[in-house]
Amino acid sequence: MKVKFGKTPFIYPIPIILAGALVEGKPNFETLGDCGLMGVNPALVYISSGKDHHTNKGILEHGTYSINFPTTDMLAVVDYCGNVSGNDIDKSVLFEVFYGELGTAPMITKCPVNLECRVVKEFSIQHRQVFVGEVAQAYVDEAFVVEREDGRRGIADMTRLNPIIYALDNRYYQIGQPIGIGYEEHKKFVPPIVAK
Amino acid sequence: MKVKFGKTPFIYPIPIILAGALVEGKPNFETLGDCGLMGVNPALVYISSGKDHHTNKGILEHGTYSINFPTTDMLAVVDYCGNVSGNDIDKSVLFEVFYGELGTAPMITKCPVNLECRVVKEFSIQHRQVFVGEVAQAYVDEAFVVEREDGRRGIADMTRLNPIIYALDNRYYQIGQPIGIGYEEHKKFVPPIVAK
Repeated sequence: MKVKFGKTPFIYPIPIILAGALVEGKPNFETLGDCGLMGVNPALVYISSGKDHHTNKGILEHGTYSINFPTTDMLAVVDYCGNVSGNDIDKSVLFEVFYGELGTAPMITKCPVNLECRVVKEFSIQHRQVFVGEVAQAYVDEAFVVEREDGRRGIADMTRLNPIIYALDNRYYQIGQPIGIGYEEHKKFVPPIVAK
Repeated sequence: MKVKFGKTPFIYPIPIILAGALVEGKPNFETLGDCGLMGVNPALVYISSGKDHHTNKGILEHGTYSINFPTTDMLAVVDYCGNVSGNDIDKSVLFEVFYGELGTAPMITKCPVNLECRVVKEFSIQHRQVFVGEVAQAYVDEAFVVEREDGRRGIADMTRLNPIIYALDNRYYQIGQPIGIGYEEHKKFVPPIVAK
């Protein structure tokens, strides 16, 4: 039996990120779960941010933003960045930042992974602005770079990256254990034989 | 020290979902990680799907699609649905399906949560079609409906929903334990005192 919950966007798990922008000359960071993948190759991502948010000003001015992945030990400051607005609080003092190739997308040094993004499409929908971004450069802290089985360098698994995860039960979670390999697990599936 | 990884969209964690559409009269399901939240109220979500994908035909014909959240015990069939195309294989035989209010968005009974979506915006970018959807109705299996502390009904926590999670190390993961409450954890953060 299915129970109806109305117009509720029960997407899960939700990645919790800090979106960075240079607003009026200062780095500003907004906590968002409205963030995700739109394509791997080319590398397309997006963030969706309320129109009156401080971060949006900087993204519109420079056409750039960053996506920073915090770790669970950063939970209190991450929740804080989602509770106070850059309109009221100077968030530039909260983190050590660095800049990459675009020069206008501040990134948080302490986050193990940072994506520097160039806006390739922007649209407004309801009270939201959606910024679709091409990843100009991905930065990974050297402590999280691993050598893969094929000898190429790769990224550590999520149990080490230790992301903050959210769901619409209003709880934060940590990641669990690996359970399988992409594009391999289907080999265990036996498709049904269907009569013509 | 940060190491550059080029134009790689290291978004994590990535939710693994089955996107459903009615294609040429038959339910079809595509495994996607290119899916996420664009807003909670109003309820906005999206999926991004390669232009030549079978699923897209049904979404374009009916203006509707579904998002279905599988559980980890469905991993083999979920990986299978990402490896074979509805252009070649009849995926309608894989799952028991039901329909909701829109009538043209097939949903998978076995998935604990299903979102029935109406396309409110569509755009093409590179080889992708992005379908932004309003949630017309969310369906939760009654086994995963809980009474919240405030007496209202809510959704079970993610350890029970048991989603399949993915990352760009090409591994699937399970969810970990809850670590905090949204909009509460900032109370543990002491903002720095900054001299004027």
